[in-house]
Parts: sequence; structure tokens; C-alpha cells
Amino acid sequence: MASTGFLCEVVGHVRSESWTYLKFTLVTSDGRARAGIVETDHGSIETPAFMPVGTQGSVKAIEQRELVEIGAQIILGNTYHLYLRPGADLIQAGGGLHRFINWTRPILTDSGGFQVFSLNNLRDIDEAGVTFKSHLDGSSHVFTPESVVQIQRQLGSDIMMVLDECAPFPCDLEYMQRSNARTLRWAERCKVAAEKPGPLYGHSQALFGIVQGSVYPEIRTQSAEALIRLGFDGYAIGGLAVGEPAELMYRIVDVCENVLPTDKPRYLMGVGTPENLIEAVSRGMDMFDCVLPTRNGRNANLFTRTGDINLRNAKYKADFTPPDGECDCYTCTNFTRAYLRHLFQAKEILGLQLATIHNLAFYLWLMREARGAILARRFPAWKNEALQRLNSKKEDTETVST
Amino acid sequence: MASTGFLCEVVGHVRSESWTYLKFTLVTSDGRARAGIVETDHGSIETPAFMPVGTQGSVKAIEQRELVEIGAQIILGNTYHLYLRPGADLIQAGGGLHRFINWTRPILTDSGGFQVFSLNNLRDIDEAGVTFKSHLDGSSHVFTPESVVQIQRQLGSDIMMVLDECAPFPCDLEYMQRSNARTLRWAERCKVAAEKPGPLYGHSQALFGIVQGSVYPEIRTQSAEALIRLGFDGYAIGGLAVGEPAELMYRIVDVCENVLPTDKPRYLMGVGTPENLIEAVSRGMDMFDCVLPTRNGRNANLFTRTGDINLRNAKYKADFTPPDGECDCYTCTNFTRAYLRHLFQAKEILGLQLATIHNLAFYLWLMREARGAILARRFPAWKNEALQRLNSKKEDTETVST
Repeated sequence: MASTGFLCEVVGHVRSESWTYLKFTLVTSDGRARAGIVETDHGSIETPAFMPVGTQGSVKAIEQRELVEIGAQIILGNTYHLYLRPGADLIQAGGGLHRFINWTRPILTDSGGFQVFSLNNLRDIDEAGVTFKSHLDGSSHVFTPESVVQIQRQLGSDIMMVLDECAPFPCDLEYMQRSNARTLRWAERCKVAAEKPGPLYGHSQALFGIVQGSVYPEIRTQSAEALIRLGFDGYAIGGLAVGEPAELMYRIVDVCENVLPTDKPRYLMGVGTPENLIEAVSRGMDMFDCVLPTRNGRNANLFTRTGDINLRNAKYKADFTPPDGECDCYTCTNFTRAYLRHLFQAKEILGLQLATIHNLAFYLWLMREARGAILARRFPAWKNEALQRLNSKKEDTETVST
Repeated sequence: MASTGFLCEVVGHVRSESWTYLKFTLVTSDGRARAGIVETDHGSIETPAFMPVGTQGSVKAIEQRELVEIGAQIILGNTYHLYLRPGADLIQAGGGLHRFINWTRPILTDSGGFQVFSLNNLRDIDEAGVTFKSHLDGSSHVFTPESVVQIQRQLGSDIMMVLDECAPFPCDLEYMQRSNARTLRWAERCKVAAEKPGPLYGHSQALFGIVQGSVYPEIRTQSAEALIRLGFDGYAIGGLAVGEPAELMYRIVDVCENVLPTDKPRYLMGVGTPENLIEAVSRGMDMFDCVLPTRNGRNANLFTRTGDINLRNAKYKADFTPPDGECDCYTCTNFTRAYLRHLFQAKEILGLQLATIHNLAFYLWLMREARGAILARRFPAWKNEALQRLNSKKEDTETVST
């Protein structure tokens, strides 16, 4: 590794190996659950890992030093949003995304595919790529597999994602087959594009493929096998958590897991609730991202070890206990449910801040616990207990109210 | 002092001296500028002091630990807002305002007079007190001098303020005379009310009088003299910074300062810009509060040693320098104008957080600098230099843009 932990100051340093280098070590398995280490030039990520979402170069309502404090080892950035604003050229002028936002640990950038395909009437797709209109000003733009890699090269993320078509749910079989074939051709073009230039900032940038195929096991298997033949630094499962039932999601995760190589990290995109994460870890998934902890936090919904609570509920008005009595985050060690409820009622920004700190701390804690259980080879027992507690909220939250 | 620095756990402990005890030590004067120490049971306040405004039990967009980090020694709470929401009874149930919001340093609460008199058509004033309708739900409430002291007793602030009528500017002479006579009668009733009960939380609560009289020197003098005869722990100057020209404000401050005793702290309410504060310090004022640093920060307007800058300005788009290169706050030591500008453009909450940290850090730094200059007996030179730099912004901000 050229450097870890601090933003590399050397610009233009070309590594001897491929610039998409990424090291993954599978430390222990317990059943299909895996404890691993992903190494990047900005430091290591212990898996299973939750990655807070920093769409526009900021994880909403939390400071970078607070992300470090609660143990975030990697955050996400969004290619689509950052490309539109402030623009990849500006971020490059600022020394890349790490330096621009002053985040010295790893960053993963998604390809923008998910956002573009969420635009519905604002986009047009063909073999070359996807033409879309900015949600900001209606201006017209084109993403191609090559341009998306180039933008992520300018951003300087440690892990780049291929451009893919993220089909909605439900999606008919024939469309999914055609779409997936194109997504695979795009994946190959991304890989070629990623191999061409050296890195801009002296650190390696890995490239992950994305398995698509909606809820069709056969297409998922074909997609995974084709991506493996191309060879990526890691494999993501996309197109889930888009409205399908949880059981169906788990079944598709099972299908993919059965095909994916053990020596590369597996990233389940956009998932999910604490329960979803535990189930996915038990199915061999290593990396996760989701806006739930941050978005729900901003809606006064706090995750706790015994289930989620909504602080707008009147029963918390005089509840002078911490949001989660077992949590060691700044919020839970300093403030009460009654105070947080007041902040939300009074529309105080601090409510958003404190809820975000706690919810992200909770997600990161959950993944550390899962990892500890895998390392100790007691994951199944831990999983059962954790799921049971997460579902005990109704009883618990009613007894704590005063 | 019963305790300093940490929330006193003893409830019902009655002090032998008056429960409105407050110690003020005038350390040094340089001309009329004063360096002093205000001592409370929650710790000391070095004056001149800026007090961040925490209207609803939160200084907007900043965490309590961050207020400590930037050196805030006292914050404000607002009686009107806290009385309406979450309510004085709830705060008392939570152990008082210090414990409810987990702020272990001193708190000053205003009387609510300013807010009530800002309601215009929603209030009705007579000798007994003021009847007003809540801005939240239109419900009807009465503030009397006695009830306002009782509410502040429930809040448990270290410094309470008397109920006063804050007249608008301009205000005709005859109305001001009648209003001021009533405000003085209210002040006496507040003092009597404050002497009756013991404290609720085992720490002392001081009571400040408020000099009114609009821009009429004679009424101001009468008001100050009458309050001094009643005897308060400190004296505030209210009814300024309500639209009158700065020079007129300074003239009224001069008039009041000429009458106020040297052995009590003087608090200029609701003031002001960095320039206003420097001018007021030079006129013998000790304490200040203002929403400018927090409110302006949330509007992307940052104070710097060379004047204020608005980060929405396009010239900061690629300005990779800190907001204020001489500032040692978290914001300035970690982030650039370009990043902050992006956060504001993208409506990211982090922009509000970082701007608030810096602006408050700047105000607190400014008062520490003023105090240091007074202690070193070089205040006049410091003042001239500081004012000159604050007005040099136009040149400075244009040269830093890239």
C-alpha cells in the first residue's frame, strides 16, 4: 500500500500493478457468514461493513470527525450527484474527493446508474449509454461506461462501480434478459476503460462489477458468471431492495452467493434494515450501504438494540432515558429521549444531528458485533439473539415510557 | 461556590446567602473597557463575553460539546419559547434546563419580554402583566413579573432577567415614559418574587435588571438609577439594536454606562456585529448575545478577521482556502470555502453545522482577544487594528478567489 490513513500527497504516482488493485482477505467463515478485511490505499475496511451514504460529498447531518468517532471505515459518494454538482472537474481541481471533503479513509462511488434509472421520464437508454436530464436544471447529459469510469477516476474513489441498468421491480423476463446482456457489455467496457489510464492521485482505484437480473435466478446466475469471467476486484448485487419482498431478496442473495468467488468482497447494494443486514451477512455478504439510518434519523426514527422508536410519539415526552441505553455514542451517553423529542418538535437542527450520530453508530456497531460473532464462530447464536431483541421493541418501548 | 463545571446533583439545598447571589470581579480596566470574571455555581464567565443563543434549548446546528470546544462559557435560553415548548414543568421534571439539555456551564434566560412584545397584534399589556397568544397554537397566556421569575426558577438558569417592556424604535417620548415607569414597577415585583422561594436545584440564580428608555438619554438615566436603587446582580441594557442607527446606540450605551455601577456586570442585549461588540466593549459593556453568528452562518455568511464573506458568491467556487485562514476552529482547520460553498449549494445540513461552528468560534475568539488586549492595557490599539481588518474584506476576499 502506498499510504494508509492519510490522504496521499503524491499526484501522478503510477503503481506497477494494475491501478484497480484491491486486497481482500477472508479471515474466518462461520457457515456462509464471513469476516474479512478489504485493504485500500486509504486504509482497511473490516467486513461485514456498513458504509454510510454521502451522496453529495457529505453524509447528511454528521461531521467527518464524527464518522471517524463512531467507527466508519468507508463512506459512499454518488457519481451522478457529484458529476452534476459541484462537477468532477472542480473536485479534481480540489485534489480529488478525499481532499475536497477532507475524508482520509476509503470512499466507494456508485456509478450513477441507479440514480439515472430512477429519473424515469428524464432518461433514454441505448447501447452507447444513457442520456438523461439533470434533476437540478433539466440540462442534458450522457453517461457511458467509459465516461462513468473517467468521472470516478476524477473523483479518485478507492472503489469504483461499473455502469449498470438497475431495473425496477417488477420487471418482465424478456426485458430483463435484454437489459442484462447490455449491462454485461457495459461492464466489459468499464473494465477496459478502467485499465487504460493511470490513477490521478497516486492511490489505487478498484472496480466492482454489479450482478443484475431482478428476481430471476437464472439471469442472476448468468450475470454473476459473466462478470466473474471478466474479473473484477469485487462483486456487487444490485437491483434488490427495490420493492420486492424480503424473502425474495434473500433467495436472490442465496443464488448470487452460490456463484460468487470466496476470495473477493461481495457488496449488497442499498440494503437495508438491521434485520436485512443480519440476514444478508448470514448469506455471505460483506458490504452494505443504505440511507435508512440517516434518513430515518432525520424523521425522528431511531434504531435501538430492541427495535426502532419514533421520538415524535407522545409517550417519549417525559422519557428521561437515553435513546438506546446500551449504546456508547455521543447522543446516547449525553441526551434523553425527552430532549431529542423536544428538538424534533421544535424543528431544531440538533435533533437531526444527534439522531444521525446514533443511527449510524448503531449500524456500525451492529456490523462490528456480527464480525465479532463470526470471528468467535458463534454467529448463528448471535444472529438469533440479535433478531429476537430487534423484534422485542413493542414490549420494551412501552415499559420505558413514563 | 457549591459546584462548578458539573451539574449539581443536590436538589433543594438552600444557600445561606440570597439565592440570587452572583459574584463579579472587575480584573482590569483600560479606559472604559473592562476585563472581569462573573462567577456562578456552574462555573466562571470571563468578560467581555459573548453568549451563544440557545432559544429553544439548543444553540442552532451545533452540539453542546462543540460549544465547549470553541470556548463558550455561558449560553442563553429563552423563557418565552421554553415555557411554551416543552414547558417549564417538563423541564423541571427533567431536572432543570442544565440537565434537560445537558449543558453543565452557566445559562442565562431572558424574561420573554422581547419575544412577547415582538408578537404585535397577539398581545395585550396592562399593569398586571402581558397577555399574549402563543405563536405555536394561538393559545392564550399571561406573563406577570412574578410568573416570569417562577418560570426561570423552574428552568434553573444561573442568571434570570426581569420582565420588561421592550419598546420598538422609533417610540414616542410620552409612551416611553409611561412604559418605563411600568417596567420599573415590574422590575421591583420581579425582585420581590425572586427573593421569596429558595432555588429548586441547589445552585444560585442571579437576577439582572434591564434598563429601557429607547433613545431618550433622560429616560435611560432615570431607568438605570431606579434599577440601581432596587439593587440587582447585574444590569442589562435592553431596547437597543432594534433598528436605530449604530451611532445612536453607542450614544445610549454611553449614557447608561455613565450611571451603571462598576462592580456589577453590564449586559448589552441583542448586540450585534463584530464592530458593534468592539465598540460596546470600549464603552464598558461586559456581556453580549446575538443571533447574528448562528443565523448568518445558516445563510452561508461567514465572519472572518478581514470581514464577512458570503459563500454563495460564485467567486468561492474553486477557492480551496479555509473560510478564515487564521482561525483554529474545526471548520477552518479542515475544510475549504469551495467545499462549504458546495454544501450550501447542495442544501447539505453539514454546511449549516460547519458555518455555525466557525461563526461562533469567531465571536468567542473576538471577545477573548478583546479581553487579552484589556488585560495587557493595549485595548485602544487593538480596537483600531481589529476594526481596520474587519473593514478590509473587499480587497482581501477578491484576491483570495481563484
